[in-house]
Amino acid sequence: MRFSPLFWPIQLKGSAIYILDETALPQKLKYIKVKNYQEACSAIKEMKTRAVGQVLLVLYTFLLEIRKNKNKKNLISILEKISCAFNKSRPTLSFRMITDMILGWAKSGLPLEKSIFGFLEMLKKQRIKQVGAASELVRDKDVVLTHCNVSGLLPLIAQICQKQNKSISFFVTETRPYLQGSRLTAWELKQQGIPVTIIADNMVAQVMSEGKINKVIVGADHLAQNGDIANKIGTYQIALLAKHFNIPFYCICPPVSNARRGQDIKIEIRPDKELLEYQGICLAPKGVKAYYPAFDITPNSLITKHIYFKV
Amino acid sequence: MRFSPLFWPIQLKGSAIYILDETALPQKLKYIKVKNYQEACSAIKEMKTRAVGQVLLVLYTFLLEIRKNKNKKNLISILEKISCAFNKSRPTLSFRMITDMILGWAKSGLPLEKSIFGFLEMLKKQRIKQVGAASELVRDKDVVLTHCNVSGLLPLIAQICQKQNKSISFFVTETRPYLQGSRLTAWELKQQGIPVTIIADNMVAQVMSEGKINKVIVGADHLAQNGDIANKIGTYQIALLAKHFNIPFYCICPPVSNARRGQDIKIEIRPDKELLEYQGICLAPKGVKAYYPAFDITPNSLITKHIYFKV
Repeated sequence: MRFSPLFWPIQLKGSAIYILDETALPQKLKYIKVKNYQEACSAIKEMKTRAVGQVLLVLYTFLLEIRKNKNKKNLISILEKISCAFNKSRPTLSFRMITDMILGWAKSGLPLEKSIFGFLEMLKKQRIKQVGAASELVRDKDVVLTHCNVSGLLPLIAQICQKQNKSISFFVTETRPYLQGSRLTAWELKQQGIPVTIIADNMVAQVMSEGKINKVIVGADHLAQNGDIANKIGTYQIALLAKHFNIPFYCICPPVSNARRGQDIKIEIRPDKELLEYQGICLAPKGVKAYYPAFDITPNSLITKHIYFKV
Repeated sequence: MRFSPLFWPIQLKGSAIYILDETALPQKLKYIKVKNYQEACSAIKEMKTRAVGQVLLVLYTFLLEIRKNKNKKNLISILEKISCAFNKSRPTLSFRMITDMILGWAKSGLPLEKSIFGFLEMLKKQRIKQVGAASELVRDKDVVLTHCNVSGLLPLIAQICQKQNKSISFFVTETRPYLQGSRLTAWELKQQGIPVTIIADNMVAQVMSEGKINKVIVGADHLAQNGDIANKIGTYQIALLAKHFNIPFYCICPPVSNARRGQDIKIEIRPDKELLEYQGICLAPKGVKAYYPAFDITPNSLITKHIYFKV
């Protein structure tokens, strides 16, 4: 299988981590070097990487810091400090499961590097299993609407479908304001020759009403215990519209978090500026206010089927 | 009352028409000069003006061409050629009512300039009446969501509400790809000190679910005889979401057209490029396809109340 660079966008080489800069795509495929947890936290806050990239970055950063500090007596308190910094970086994302897991291993005296590498291996395998499960849901000639970016999984789903002689094509919302749909999803699909059409976020009802869409497949940043998900802003209204037009809505989920229900997940509000400017161009009159919730909650009742991540 | 430049964006001075260039706002308030119907048609195709601006431009262009050609024997065939050019310029807009009206006057030997000026006067009065009717629907502290731009009517509604001691504020969708919401509506409201917050088109369900919106008010480019409307792409999904969240959805309508129902209105599909580039910046990978229906149809059943234009 040919993997999109977005499937595994973080690499550890020697004493540095290399982050695929998702804000520079599709114009430039470049990597940012970080050497410690402070730089890793900044990259997360600035959305240089997102979704699975952020999870991988947390894991690789722990590896790096453990290597640096492994002979120190206060290793656990160092790891606690790092955990705290990551968990403050983006409110909606649930790094806590990972940070608690690593702290648990440290406190039980388990071999940390080996445990983290084992976890990374499991992560890769489970994600490939999710790709298999998702491709089972696709029928020949399906046109799938997606939103934002599902971290390299859609090109893999398309490849499996092609092997099974099922033709598949995609519509992708541009996903304002960061345009992950246009810049990342359209790019990784196009690179592999998979048919993809970009629409603006306000065209979803229209394309659904024209009968152009058979299925919706999205990812999620957070899965609550009752099946509610938090995902990139815009997911919720796509789910409501899919329900209205009777189109199945599938979600490829991360591991379940500690949140009991969607309402328990804190929605991150990002700066006005990110909505009012694009690459230095002013999109609105000076001094006007904006409101930018970065995620929304899609209730379990709107999700036709969860494609679970099984730990 | 203080009028937004968008309320009456076309001026006739001597032998030229001046068009407020809506693509240059809010950075520049500039007017484009046109001297004949060919230039006027180009300005419409390039969306230099839109909505009421296009209707005014058609009317003023006829005035100009009638003045130029009034002593010609073939005036009617000249007017027919102009009508034909306007009616080809944008499929979804219904200039036919106006062109048929003017041709009718010409064939009946009515004084053309006087009739057109009379019609322009009536247009202004009726629009101000619509403003009055819309402001009746607003209650104190209402937060109104709008989409695209209602050609200067919202600042007038807000002014009437203020006189009646009703405080009113707005949320506006940015309205991709032309950003009429951010560039025009937010600008004209901000200029008059009326509170306004910009959101991306994908944030509508989220702000509605947070209880931030009490009412939706939009305009329309086309009103069919059964009450269906065609308006800027994105209106339909806002109407569906308003229904879901039980929020009244009001539409300030143009005169009714010849279309029996929404399905009879042809939806204009505009070039991919307009979605894939913004002010010369590439928003997507080279060679990717886009789909850009410029309007959508909102069925009568989703409209709580039409604010009719009464001829």
